[in-house]
Amino acid sequence: MPVTFINLFEVPAGREEAFRLLWEQVNGYMQGQPGYRSHRLHRALADDARYRYANLATWESAKAWRDAHDEGFTKLVTQPQWREFPSTPALYEVVHTGEDTASAIS
Amino acid sequence: MPVTFINLFEVPAGREEAFRLLWEQVNGYMQGQPGYRSHRLHRALADDARYRYANLATWESAKAWRDAHDEGFTKLVTQPQWREFPSTPALYEVVHTGEDTASAIS
Repeated sequence: MPVTFINLFEVPAGREEAFRLLWEQVNGYMQGQPGYRSHRLHRALADDARYRYANLATWESAKAWRDAHDEGFTKLVTQPQWREFPSTPALYEVVHTGEDTASAIS
Repeated sequence: MPVTFINLFEVPAGREEAFRLLWEQVNGYMQGQPGYRSHRLHRALADDARYRYANLATWESAKAWRDAHDEGFTKLVTQPQWREFPSTPALYEVVHTGEDTASAIS
C-alpha cells in the first residue's frame, strides 16, 4: 500500500536559505532510495505560520520508507545545523479525496 | 496562482468517527465553493501521531480560498463539537517537486 510521509518544519525568520540547503541534501538522498515515488515541498504564504515548510512524499510502502532511513540518511540528518529546524514527521494513508469536475476538464 | 491549504487535526483516541462526521460536513460545503480544485485527507498510521489527520486542499487562488470562508462556512465550524479537535491551518505554495521516473512509467 502506498503511503504519504508528511514532515512539518519550523524555520526561524531569516533562516530559510540555510534550511533549504539542508533539506535539499536530505531530499536528494531520499529521492535515490528504492520505493521513493514523489514529493512536494510547500512554503507557507504567511510569515507567522507555525510550520513554514511542509514536505509531502509518497512511497511505495511503509517498509520501503523505513528501509530508506539507512546509515547515509542518518549521517545527513544528525548534522548539528538541523537543530535549528525542529520537525514533526509522520506517516499517513489517504482516506478521502475529491476533485472539482469542472476544473479537471479544463 | 494555485495555492495549497493544509490543515492539521488533533483527534483524541476513540473520537475519530465524531471527527470524520464533522470534517465531512465542512469538506462537502467547501467542495461546492468557487475555486475549489481538489483535496486529500490523510490519516496517520501511528496512533500516537501528533496530528491524526492532515487535509490538503488545492484552490485556484488565495482569494478564492478566502472568499470561500463565508457565513455558511462559519456556521459549520463554530459548532461546539469542533472544540474537541484543535486544528493548525495554513496556506502554502509548492516550491519544490520531484518524481521517480521509473515509477512514473509503470
